[in-house]
Amino acid sequence: LGALDEAARARLATTIGQHDCAALVVVASTSSDPDLAPFVRGARLSESCLLADRNGEIVLGYFTPMERDEARSTGLEATSTDDLGRSSSAVVTESASSFGGRAGRLLRHLLENRGWRSGRVALAGSAPAGDVLGIARVLETAGFEVTSGTALSRRWRRAKSGWQLEDMRRAAAATCEAMRKVAATLADASIDQERLRLDGRDLRIADLQREVALVLAAAGLEQPEGQIISTGAVAGVPHSRGDPETVLRAGETIVVDLFPRSLLFADCTRTFVVPPVSDEVQSLAKLVRRALDGAKKNLRVGTGGLDLQDQTCAVFEEAGFPTLRSAPKSPRGYVHGLGHGVGFELHELPSFRADGEDGTIHQGDVVTVEPGLYDPKAGFGIRLEDLLWMGPDGPENLTPLPYAVDPSLWPRQG
Amino acid sequence: LGALDEAARARLATTIGQHDCAALVVVASTSSDPDLAPFVRGARLSESCLLADRNGEIVLGYFTPMERDEARSTGLEATSTDDLGRSSSAVVTESASSFGGRAGRLLRHLLENRGWRSGRVALAGSAPAGDVLGIARVLETAGFEVTSGTALSRRWRRAKSGWQLEDMRRAAAATCEAMRKVAATLADASIDQERLRLDGRDLRIADLQREVALVLAAAGLEQPEGQIISTGAVAGVPHSRGDPETVLRAGETIVVDLFPRSLLFADCTRTFVVPPVSDEVQSLAKLVRRALDGAKKNLRVGTGGLDLQDQTCAVFEEAGFPTLRSAPKSPRGYVHGLGHGVGFELHELPSFRADGEDGTIHQGDVVTVEPGLYDPKAGFGIRLEDLLWMGPDGPENLTPLPYAVDPSLWPRQG
Repeated sequence: LGALDEAARARLATTIGQHDCAALVVVASTSSDPDLAPFVRGARLSESCLLADRNGEIVLGYFTPMERDEARSTGLEATSTDDLGRSSSAVVTESASSFGGRAGRLLRHLLENRGWRSGRVALAGSAPAGDVLGIARVLETAGFEVTSGTALSRRWRRAKSGWQLEDMRRAAAATCEAMRKVAATLADASIDQERLRLDGRDLRIADLQREVALVLAAAGLEQPEGQIISTGAVAGVPHSRGDPETVLRAGETIVVDLFPRSLLFADCTRTFVVPPVSDEVQSLAKLVRRALDGAKKNLRVGTGGLDLQDQTCAVFEEAGFPTLRSAPKSPRGYVHGLGHGVGFELHELPSFRADGEDGTIHQGDVVTVEPGLYDPKAGFGIRLEDLLWMGPDGPENLTPLPYAVDPSLWPRQG
Repeated sequence: LGALDEAARARLATTIGQHDCAALVVVASTSSDPDLAPFVRGARLSESCLLADRNGEIVLGYFTPMERDEARSTGLEATSTDDLGRSSSAVVTESASSFGGRAGRLLRHLLENRGWRSGRVALAGSAPAGDVLGIARVLETAGFEVTSGTALSRRWRRAKSGWQLEDMRRAAAATCEAMRKVAATLADASIDQERLRLDGRDLRIADLQREVALVLAAAGLEQPEGQIISTGAVAGVPHSRGDPETVLRAGETIVVDLFPRSLLFADCTRTFVVPPVSDEVQSLAKLVRRALDGAKKNLRVGTGGLDLQDQTCAVFEEAGFPTLRSAPKSPRGYVHGLGHGVGFELHELPSFRADGEDGTIHQGDVVTVEPGLYDPKAGFGIRLEDLLWMGPDGPENLTPLPYAVDPSLWPRQG
């Protein structure tokens, strides 16, 4: 049942040592916190904390007695402030009732109990700023040097295998199902003076959002970061969200970028055009597809994300488009990075914008590859995005969907 | 379109002054951060920050040029690090590329640009611990005293009106619809050797979870904190989550506690028993209902949450049950607090466990009232929870649902 296997534990202890720290401390407002989730799998906790030291010891701290069963379901040693009793040497600060005060007290106790009296402690997890400052103060007062554990945690948890990989495969499969549902709906629409119509009503972005939400909810997935379904000039700006009331139109590009979460995230984009598809859009879509295929072909363990980005820029520049490299301020052309790591965070390591190890593809990474072409003035955006796991036998595409912009060319299932 | 009216701006400036601060600084990994969301309504931003000073000035900081349109849709003055240029006096630290480094640089610039060179800065919002520490370091190096802004922010944003109240009413209405759907499903079930059956299959917790998720998703709501649907001995521990594979049984208590989020949260609990309902459960349910009615009757502006809790304990103690007051360690009886504030956080001010203003009911508060009785050994839990807005004419119940434990007594709609 435990979330952590021996290899992951050993890797963590090594990483803590490499960062010259005695321990990693995680503070989290919720157990879905990306720095805590790898330790607890799906267990539901509210405010909690965790200590992992470089000797391989790991203890989970919780604060609500009612959460004892959830805490123990993780298979980790679990302790709450209730277990400290009054004989604890830890001083109760004036803000002891806050999360920061309680977590600081418990973490100090756990550190001292394991023989740590000084040394560097890396602090990771996400919590209200006031609580983070409070915990740092308690540990510093106790004689520890507190440093950022954010990079340490991200490096440790970037490799995906076991239940984490299974969860991402499941999330990606549900994402694909939602995308197929969108394609089917668009294919079923009729056209009245360019407006898409279904069941006697205008078809709007809100209708697609609702269908996506229903498919994902039925699979047990959430969309904590929302989704992008945008058309025309709005689709021409990569991260703009569509206005739900917008009526969909034939001939316009419809960018559908879904990034739901099970325990971990998935991420996938397709671009649709309900015919007529202009020759220009058809040829731009082919170019984006060529960039996608080229980048996926070059994606292998040891490759640098920056190199992949350069190769992709070259594809678009040769076709006459500005890119982030040739014209960084241009809103037209290929205006964003090629991809990013995905896992407990929607954007995590590897970073396709970083030098060194953080920017190099490792075995176990899950990454997006998502080239696109945009022109807000001409009123279009075209993006294709696949999600790939870097397995021992090469990349596995977790989002094996059609790429056709015409939704009627997508095969129907079931 | 703006998220903030003049009254809210003025209240914020006053609150900042009351906390002896020059400014409130919010750092946020996402615009759904409870300390940032009141400023941006539904605008979608990734990492971002905000400066509000005690003179009433407010500036939103964003870091991704693609998010410019979203940032401006808030109606706030919006600035990104791109606008700083190279002539900025702010020093680029070695960790300038991290969120903490970029936010620290931008916030320092914004503070100095508004004439602040020293003084106390309250830091709120939630972000990775490493980034919080980095931002605090940049501001302290620049000459500011950094203190926790978590309490300040919670106090400022506890009053609900306007679009925030409308959003909570909408979220609560969808929650009620999901609860009615659960009641209807339970009422439709047949019984085979105590097991509930529907459509020729055993009815499981997972089936109810799926129905709830579909209703909420169709209304555009998320469940970022999950939900509790638990039965029997599991329901006997208030915060335990049910195992989805558990088959529902006649005669068992089924606790359904839903707490989805639109922009703000809603929160509501009902307890069901598919007949036969034992005399004991029936009389316990009546007692919980009496405690709920009593607490709602006593709920008014100026009341202390601790007093309401005391009154509720008295109801249960008089009936012979242990309570959190009479037997704090007992897993049996009335084992938790009476309620909590709800808003951009599921648990926020007022706190029913705090003394003073933080624990006193104010006009504009939205609170839960949720008495319950539990016995993990006997294998039951019964909880009833309503969500109430403290309006100028008294409390408004946002979750006006039936209280009957027998789902067949719930009126069918539509």
